[in-house]
Amino acid sequence: MGSAATSGVTDAVFRPASVAVVGASSNADSPGHDYVRSLIDFGFRGPIYPINPRATEIAGLPAYPTLAAVPGDVDYAISCVPAPAVLPLIDECRAKGVRTLHLFTGRFAETGDAGAAALERDVARRASDAGIRVIGPNCMGVYDAVGGMAFRPDLPREPGDVAFLSQSGNNSVELMLHGAARGLRFSKVVSYGNALDLSEADFLDYLADDDDTRVVGAYIEGTGDGRRLFEALRRCAGAKPVVVLKGGRTGAGSRTAASHTAALAGRRQVWSAMLRQAGAVEVSTFDDLIDMLVAFAFLRVEAHALGAAPAVGVVGGGGGRAVQSADVCEEAGLRVPKLPAAIRVMLRERAPELADWVDNPVDQSILAGSAVSGARVLEMMLASPELDGLIANVGEDWVLGRPDAVDRMAHLVGRFAEIGERAEKPIAFVLGVADSPDETKWRAVEGGRQRLTDARLAVYPSVDRAARAMARYIAHLAAQQEHGGTPAAEGVRR
Amino acid sequence: MGSAATSGVTDAVFRPASVAVVGASSNADSPGHDYVRSLIDFGFRGPIYPINPRATEIAGLPAYPTLAAVPGDVDYAISCVPAPAVLPLIDECRAKGVRTLHLFTGRFAETGDAGAAALERDVARRASDAGIRVIGPNCMGVYDAVGGMAFRPDLPREPGDVAFLSQSGNNSVELMLHGAARGLRFSKVVSYGNALDLSEADFLDYLADDDDTRVVGAYIEGTGDGRRLFEALRRCAGAKPVVVLKGGRTGAGSRTAASHTAALAGRRQVWSAMLRQAGAVEVSTFDDLIDMLVAFAFLRVEAHALGAAPAVGVVGGGGGRAVQSADVCEEAGLRVPKLPAAIRVMLRERAPELADWVDNPVDQSILAGSAVSGARVLEMMLASPELDGLIANVGEDWVLGRPDAVDRMAHLVGRFAEIGERAEKPIAFVLGVADSPDETKWRAVEGGRQRLTDARLAVYPSVDRAARAMARYIAHLAAQQEHGGTPAAEGVRR
Repeated sequence: MGSAATSGVTDAVFRPASVAVVGASSNADSPGHDYVRSLIDFGFRGPIYPINPRATEIAGLPAYPTLAAVPGDVDYAISCVPAPAVLPLIDECRAKGVRTLHLFTGRFAETGDAGAAALERDVARRASDAGIRVIGPNCMGVYDAVGGMAFRPDLPREPGDVAFLSQSGNNSVELMLHGAARGLRFSKVVSYGNALDLSEADFLDYLADDDDTRVVGAYIEGTGDGRRLFEALRRCAGAKPVVVLKGGRTGAGSRTAASHTAALAGRRQVWSAMLRQAGAVEVSTFDDLIDMLVAFAFLRVEAHALGAAPAVGVVGGGGGRAVQSADVCEEAGLRVPKLPAAIRVMLRERAPELADWVDNPVDQSILAGSAVSGARVLEMMLASPELDGLIANVGEDWVLGRPDAVDRMAHLVGRFAEIGERAEKPIAFVLGVADSPDETKWRAVEGGRQRLTDARLAVYPSVDRAARAMARYIAHLAAQQEHGGTPAAEGVRR
Repeated sequence: MGSAATSGVTDAVFRPASVAVVGASSNADSPGHDYVRSLIDFGFRGPIYPINPRATEIAGLPAYPTLAAVPGDVDYAISCVPAPAVLPLIDECRAKGVRTLHLFTGRFAETGDAGAAALERDVARRASDAGIRVIGPNCMGVYDAVGGMAFRPDLPREPGDVAFLSQSGNNSVELMLHGAARGLRFSKVVSYGNALDLSEADFLDYLADDDDTRVVGAYIEGTGDGRRLFEALRRCAGAKPVVVLKGGRTGAGSRTAASHTAALAGRRQVWSAMLRQAGAVEVSTFDDLIDMLVAFAFLRVEAHALGAAPAVGVVGGGGGRAVQSADVCEEAGLRVPKLPAAIRVMLRERAPELADWVDNPVDQSILAGSAVSGARVLEMMLASPELDGLIANVGEDWVLGRPDAVDRMAHLVGRFAEIGERAEKPIAFVLGVADSPDETKWRAVEGGRQRLTDARLAVYPSVDRAARAMARYIAHLAAQQEHGGTPAAEGVRR
């Protein structure tokens, strides 16, 4: 865990000794129930205290009418009570020695109502006077699977090394669920809402020093202190890759951000310049955000491979996919050179009739029935000094049309996974989404993706997304190298 | 079916009276088996003749050693024999009175071998002398579910009104399978490979007049006659929307196209200008191709709604999704105006505390627990003259976290589907991919998509893809209107 010397965030925020859920509920369809359930399901090791004036037991745990009635210490409180009840709750927290208050409670400044905004300012003042740090209001709070902190029972149980901070609660859930399907696992996640006290800059400062975190993603709508955010971003991006999706880039977007988290969204150009100067990677869609986190989490690169217009080798899929792959790679800024001579020599020995025909990208349908497999070409591409990165299309739509589809898919993906596990160059695997209503096909594709992500490999749903992520990944590391040290590149080597 | 007066393609190409599969095989893992199986499974109504010198029966049908041995007439022959056997086959076809020869057989000019290219020219000459029209070589051939023609047993059985022509066999399969998952069904599909005789222009001429076809998609790598292609595209795009993915846009892409279908890919700028002038919609990724076909197949537009910078209303999803939606809509060229006054009046009556807070895009989490549903706002947006199009986020990741997830999902999607079915404005629904390894979640999302696509509604996997498709769709119709008639707009009104 980090030292967090420069941040308002300490380890206590992610791994408190005890948690009270104020406004806990027996109604399974309520946030006050979700928090209790999540803490239980994730195995939170300290005491969990449901607080509810009208219940004696919630989710199998003894409930208490007030914080004051709790028999032990309360380190961390989650507030699910309505906004008007928050000021008295702070007084109770102070009396009980609570260090951190997470306000799931919303309907403050984001409503646009002057009274609600004034109440929010009062909350800030009273918590500050009490020495209590506040997460939120209007947010999902903290996830840390090792410590047993979570805000929804269906989040990944297994911890990982990607951190995510999000001004939106729903985005944090979506990023975790869809990221998990791509193999991402998380060290710390925080949905921090209106950032009344602890801000994106505080969390970035903390994550910069957090040894559990190797890659950082962020969804940010606005900031109250641009200078501090810039410094925090620069420090964090100097230590590990930071990918940022800025919400509120447009007129309508910033108007919406104001009614969502009361954020001052600012001008897009200023943000983009700031992110670039800080060394962060800016993305503009949710898919791009996941794609870049997958790149930084799972692509591997040798130091020598960082050049402008890096060369890629592409295998797999039929002729149409080969043509598409070449187009999207070149359009993404990658070079697609002709097949390395060493591979052509191998082809001349083993499949002479194909030796002058097969090229890069390799059209798998040409190899079919020959003594040379696509996996063999992939292995030789890995060994070729002429290629900096690789893209391997699974080509599942062809495989799934064969009579032995399930076995064939498992074999092909297994071979790819073995090669990927040993690779010292970045390989992006392309496996389409499992959108077939046919359960057998769904299981075959889902199982294939699982096999690849279990091996900690980067999987993309289309070759254009793979090419764009690979190009940005290599360009980012090259830029880092150029600007002195290679902290980000070192950070992702394994 | 079309009159096809200007085209080498006649109805006989898609709906022959009888079919022989030359090189038919009992090996279930071979193309010679797939074609026989597909014709049987799709209920081809004429006789199917497997031709194999060493078999008496294939897939339950009597097999014949040669075409000459077939007792009845043979209208259409599918060749799965190797390239050197094709010239003698043409002689047999001539003797038998075959009108159309589909050459699945490949390894001609695309190999780059001079002898193979010479053989291809001989094939062209001999077929032409025999008065036989050739599809291919090096292609999957024809799909027409009404007539019972198909090239893979797992293609959609139910016919539809979208046609697709593809220089790549694999792309035709991928487009049909992934398009089917988005609700697309097909009138005619042809994978035409090297286009030795019947070309993309011939098929476009035919589809322009085909009453079964309302929307046309194409994957084209190159052409032997740019002028003729332009005329065919212009005629077809004048009659119905035509969406084109050009393969071989880059240096590496055109080199790959040459080794795939021996195509002369040409310069990208020339192609883009040609497509634009012809009134076709150019896309550059496979996802965009499907997204635009979905737009033309399922979005509906009122004539008055065609203006520059059309205004959209957005509902659904939490606050983060609302901000993202606003950003990607404006970046796609759509306006996101403030909530129409009539809706604010309704809110003031039913949920006064929210009336000054809720805006466009509508943050569903604000409405939760109030007397106003997102579906109700969507209905009012449909009725509002201030909005030209709508985007409805299902927000499934939130729904799937609730205890009654399956029922709630079904209810929400059902409401959306009912509203969509009655709508006279374009609505793009956003429902993410079903990538959860949890089978219950998979079924809930898959079932939701099915409900929407069964209602012939446009479903997109992300709000940015929905926004881009909506913007291009409206811009295309507006451009068509401006250039005189409104054939495309009329074509898609229902």
